[in-house]
Amino acid sequence: MPHFSIKDHIFMANALRIAKKGQYTAHPNPMVGCVLAKDGKIIGQGWHKKTGAAHAEINALQDAGENANGSTAYVTLEPCSQYGKTPPCFEALIKAGVKKVITATKDPSQKFSDKALESLIAAGVAVEYGLMKSAAEELNRGFLMRVTKQRPFIQLKLAVSIDGAISMKNGESQWITSSAARKDVQKLRARAGAIMTGIGTILEDDPLLNIRENNIETGGIQPIRVILDSHLRTPVTASILKLSGKNLVCCTNNKKSKNLMRLNAEVKLFKSINGLVDCREVFEELASRGINNLLIEAGPTLSGYLLERKLVDELIIYQAPHIMGSETIKLASTPSWTSLVDREELVISDTRRVGSDTRIITSFNKAN
Amino acid sequence: MPHFSIKDHIFMANALRIAKKGQYTAHPNPMVGCVLAKDGKIIGQGWHKKTGAAHAEINALQDAGENANGSTAYVTLEPCSQYGKTPPCFEALIKAGVKKVITATKDPSQKFSDKALESLIAAGVAVEYGLMKSAAEELNRGFLMRVTKQRPFIQLKLAVSIDGAISMKNGESQWITSSAARKDVQKLRARAGAIMTGIGTILEDDPLLNIRENNIETGGIQPIRVILDSHLRTPVTASILKLSGKNLVCCTNNKKSKNLMRLNAEVKLFKSINGLVDCREVFEELASRGINNLLIEAGPTLSGYLLERKLVDELIIYQAPHIMGSETIKLASTPSWTSLVDREELVISDTRRVGSDTRIITSFNKAN
Repeated sequence: MPHFSIKDHIFMANALRIAKKGQYTAHPNPMVGCVLAKDGKIIGQGWHKKTGAAHAEINALQDAGENANGSTAYVTLEPCSQYGKTPPCFEALIKAGVKKVITATKDPSQKFSDKALESLIAAGVAVEYGLMKSAAEELNRGFLMRVTKQRPFIQLKLAVSIDGAISMKNGESQWITSSAARKDVQKLRARAGAIMTGIGTILEDDPLLNIRENNIETGGIQPIRVILDSHLRTPVTASILKLSGKNLVCCTNNKKSKNLMRLNAEVKLFKSINGLVDCREVFEELASRGINNLLIEAGPTLSGYLLERKLVDELIIYQAPHIMGSETIKLASTPSWTSLVDREELVISDTRRVGSDTRIITSFNKAN
Repeated sequence: MPHFSIKDHIFMANALRIAKKGQYTAHPNPMVGCVLAKDGKIIGQGWHKKTGAAHAEINALQDAGENANGSTAYVTLEPCSQYGKTPPCFEALIKAGVKKVITATKDPSQKFSDKALESLIAAGVAVEYGLMKSAAEELNRGFLMRVTKQRPFIQLKLAVSIDGAISMKNGESQWITSSAARKDVQKLRARAGAIMTGIGTILEDDPLLNIRENNIETGGIQPIRVILDSHLRTPVTASILKLSGKNLVCCTNNKKSKNLMRLNAEVKLFKSINGLVDCREVFEELASRGINNLLIEAGPTLSGYLLERKLVDELIIYQAPHIMGSETIKLASTPSWTSLVDREELVISDTRRVGSDTRIITSFNKAN
């Protein structure tokens, strides 16, 4: 591992920061940022907006102009080496006279990545790797998960009272959390390529699961809405079917699919496990469609099912400052967790106030 | 309201800080701190340790010595005016030549408080009141509650998972929270004059409810342990009866009290409301015994009962980073809360990490 200077860290941190501008638009591509620096100063920067648009390196070179000659490029992901929708970036860097390329992390989706590196080295460009690697991997955890494990990064979102209730037994649940929390969920949705729910939630709440905030710049993209509906009980009157954007209804028996197919829905058959759609197969399907991040907003049945089977990567809990008491429905139905050893240990990565609520972001303790 | 300077605030903040040294020992007395300042500098300070020991003002005067002459006294509670266990402080302040007395808050327990003020003024001592009043009231909220409302300040402590469970349905509950959280509870206990639980917890968990941490300096004082046991079901084998310190068993029918009375227990009869001990009467009894702060550590039945009747001033939730799921017992049984409007809205005053857990201190939204 080369020794990187403080300046190197500052420039890469900047590249990571601008890469994040693509959080609502870059997917299925990774978010990438590029900073060009010369004589200790930034002389150009760029980020990747969306599929088909210029890559971060090209935007940075354009920003720097002729000044790019003799500069160092800080790129959050290794420069592409493929002749795809745009010419490969490593060629542009060589051509512009960049003398050094520092990358944070490799791109496992690139089949010929060593070729790019070799070309750079052959052209006399110094190449260093691994600066702020874990931050860069965190930034593109969804993309990396998809290309290495053929499934999206899976977030489960829950809106609960301080005592873990999601609704009263009489069904009342609107609204437990504040409007600020609901706005925050809109951003979660915008970062995801797909939003999944279960048939229970469709029947109970008739949700929209779309992005309704105008000030989130997704370029009009709506995430695919995925309904786990093993026995095709989604009613043709469901509000979700009347929205623009794609609905994918996942079932184990598509005999009754005609009516839904006439509406805005793709009905797809999946393997059945004990009469229920095989979630893992759905996740694979979503990855094959370029979904990096899947957000699940579900009721206690699906949430509990996924938790019991350890199918969730991250849990996002919006906790409202209310005690709702015992006559309520809890966040997850987990019939197989009967002993204290069954509980799922969490690692809290972030806790913050969102409006009057507390947002807790947790992952699962892999040690257990 | 007089205009206080930044220096005034600094000195009173200091007096409040040292007053808190009495948190484990001063009760039933209030915590009091006194700072003597002259020429912009602290020349003496003192706090009140316990009943019978010198008052804060006397300790500060002793600390300052002859230098006290011409100084300003910052006292968190107005100086006492009564000839009680110690001579009244206002006389000592006059005698020492203090030229100004600034107090944070009045002492509603003093019957002749105006007399002290009048004497000070007659002796040419300037008197000002109200500096950092709310902080001083917060410090002695238990004492103030007792002397103005004839009941203690009531805290309900709960140790739960992130989804609001206190145990598995099979009864397993040791331990949900971390040892750091349990150590923190020891401090809560040491600040309280009494610890209350219900008969359900006695039968289920056989708790000790005592202070076991050696590094909390309570001077060997143990809080009174109060058991709400309407029908005297406390078994003679209960561990709590074998401890030093006082046990008060509250019942509505004391026919079976003989065996308990032979052990370390006072059995007292209270009014019955629907067959259960009238909690309000117990709270009054505790206040009459000088209890400023009551800590309740109970199971879902008593916790829910108190929450439903709005009998709690502050809720302290230790939340462990675990999901325990649906096969669990929740923190409070609240059969009367059937609709979303029944939920209890909370105001969070403090959230912090204690070991691996999160401690959330909340009060109830009085607006509702």
